[in-house]
Amino acid sequence: MTEALNPIQWKNNALVLLDQTKLPNEIVYEEFTTVESVWDAIVTMKVRGAPAIGVAAAYAVYLGVRDLKPDLDQTVLGKVVQKHVAYLATSRPTAVNLFWALERMTAVKITDASYKEALLAEAQAIHKEDEEINRMIGENLLTLLSDGIGILTHCNAGALATSKYGTATAPMYLAKEKGWNFKVYADETRPRLQGSTLTALELSRAGIDVTVITDSMAAMVMSQGKVQAVIVGCDRVAANGDTANKIGTLGVSILAKHYGIPFYVAAPTPTIDLNTPNGAGIPIEERHKSEVIEGFGKLTAPADVKVYNPAFDVTPAQHITAIITEKGIVRAPYGENLEKLFS
Amino acid sequence: MTEALNPIQWKNNALVLLDQTKLPNEIVYEEFTTVESVWDAIVTMKVRGAPAIGVAAAYAVYLGVRDLKPDLDQTVLGKVVQKHVAYLATSRPTAVNLFWALERMTAVKITDASYKEALLAEAQAIHKEDEEINRMIGENLLTLLSDGIGILTHCNAGALATSKYGTATAPMYLAKEKGWNFKVYADETRPRLQGSTLTALELSRAGIDVTVITDSMAAMVMSQGKVQAVIVGCDRVAANGDTANKIGTLGVSILAKHYGIPFYVAAPTPTIDLNTPNGAGIPIEERHKSEVIEGFGKLTAPADVKVYNPAFDVTPAQHITAIITEKGIVRAPYGENLEKLFS
Repeated sequence: MTEALNPIQWKNNALVLLDQTKLPNEIVYEEFTTVESVWDAIVTMKVRGAPAIGVAAAYAVYLGVRDLKPDLDQTVLGKVVQKHVAYLATSRPTAVNLFWALERMTAVKITDASYKEALLAEAQAIHKEDEEINRMIGENLLTLLSDGIGILTHCNAGALATSKYGTATAPMYLAKEKGWNFKVYADETRPRLQGSTLTALELSRAGIDVTVITDSMAAMVMSQGKVQAVIVGCDRVAANGDTANKIGTLGVSILAKHYGIPFYVAAPTPTIDLNTPNGAGIPIEERHKSEVIEGFGKLTAPADVKVYNPAFDVTPAQHITAIITEKGIVRAPYGENLEKLFS
Repeated sequence: MTEALNPIQWKNNALVLLDQTKLPNEIVYEEFTTVESVWDAIVTMKVRGAPAIGVAAAYAVYLGVRDLKPDLDQTVLGKVVQKHVAYLATSRPTAVNLFWALERMTAVKITDASYKEALLAEAQAIHKEDEEINRMIGENLLTLLSDGIGILTHCNAGALATSKYGTATAPMYLAKEKGWNFKVYADETRPRLQGSTLTALELSRAGIDVTVITDSMAAMVMSQGKVQAVIVGCDRVAANGDTANKIGTLGVSILAKHYGIPFYVAAPTPTIDLNTPNGAGIPIEERHKSEVIEGFGKLTAPADVKVYNPAFDVTPAQHITAIITEKGIVRAPYGENLEKLFS
């Protein structure tokens, strides 16, 4: 097996990210030592995936105070942290893990000289917990699957989107360890192609059977009986179970419903946002038209054409067979059962 | 209005094709004078779209005899024509217009010295009829639509896929002439991007309001109430109404059904194949994996990854609200009503 790709590392008091915009052609690790450069890495999607964004942002808060002199007034310090948090919160609007991680960093007490260590420790705790969460999600998901089935996934809710294992991909890695063979279909996931550039890359490196299809082929492979389960990640789950995830997920959920295929959402609890009552309350980021018509350096439409480029869509709760968290499997009625998860 | 693009012309005793692989960046017309070069143009998709392929192949049959000496034995001649027809039939397997046009060319009597003129005349008749057919399809479709609605289309069943007007786009051009304003959503149509490179190009040049979306955004625009009708072309309609069209059409039909949006298939009668009982009998072309993972000139997945790349899919008749032909609008039961069309 090839060396595993490591999307987020903390090394030599700096954040090291695998530049995901260069995959699959180049494997480049870049070091980040400022809040601004991490903000930029999130915006340009060098780091992406809801859990990974949360972890990167947490480290960025620490980077923002790392070089301050040790004897600053605690009110001043609090304001500095708040400023960094507010700034980082503007990087991407949809994934709730970002805000969750920033809230955890905000909650760190910075009342004495050890505040830097405390902030770093909290970022590292978030990082470590993410790995454990994903393994648990994988184990829970695995109870719903069986050896030899076909699984379709959209975008990359993989190891590259998290600290380790991924969310949607966690059962694939765990199944591989126990000798099971899934046949995975990876939607390429336009416009940014995270399915072909990232999911296909990480699964094939791990020796998992993966086939790339264009998003438009999902219906056909389902109609051919090749898919027994759909597993996707998520950027935010509302209190009623409505789920924002990468653009195209809504369509896949409708296809799965049509063909009677279970549709599973892998959701770390930090992605569940009980403060957002339903999908209508989830802000959907729109990105630049160049992603659609100049994605690969060459114009693929008239330059002045109108383009609509929402980065996410919302899958209504009623299309979702189950939401799989590290704390267990949640089924409808989601409003009631998601709330129980936190009580 | 910019000069209209002309995908197929017969000029100076040669076939002139607009090289559609170079759009939208370059407008290059190329002259073809041999059967082999036209075969190649069909395979490489310099000319594409079921009706346009049929017209190009018809001219190619003539090009194959154009330079023969005039006094050849008619049995020899018949064999030459048969050889060209058999060869051209191998260019693409799914669209039935190709075989229909080749059959018409085969049926031309080549019993006297004027056989060359007769073959050319037949090719030109096929060319001319296609234009008239499309105008009639447009008029019939227009009776199902109203001013101001949103229309989603997939791939390019446009003027660029035909002699003129297109099939799915015909009502858009006719509506424009009468001062109506549709809001058209063009799926970019991976892997070959005919929606963004061709449909968006021809509609925007004609001053029609068009917005490019990735295929994965179709569900979202439908969920937002932006689409009141889906119109697609087709490569082959089976006797029971099952319809092969560009990969992704099946998925769009399921989304339209889910949202209660009418799903219309624009089908010239030469595309209707009563000899194929149902969709299972339609051969589906699979194309090279490079279209999916190197479509933009740069590798977008690990080079050795598995790829599935069917060029078409089959939409079951029960997803289709109506099939619109030049002879009228056909509704379920399709088996019965399509047969009536030909009697």
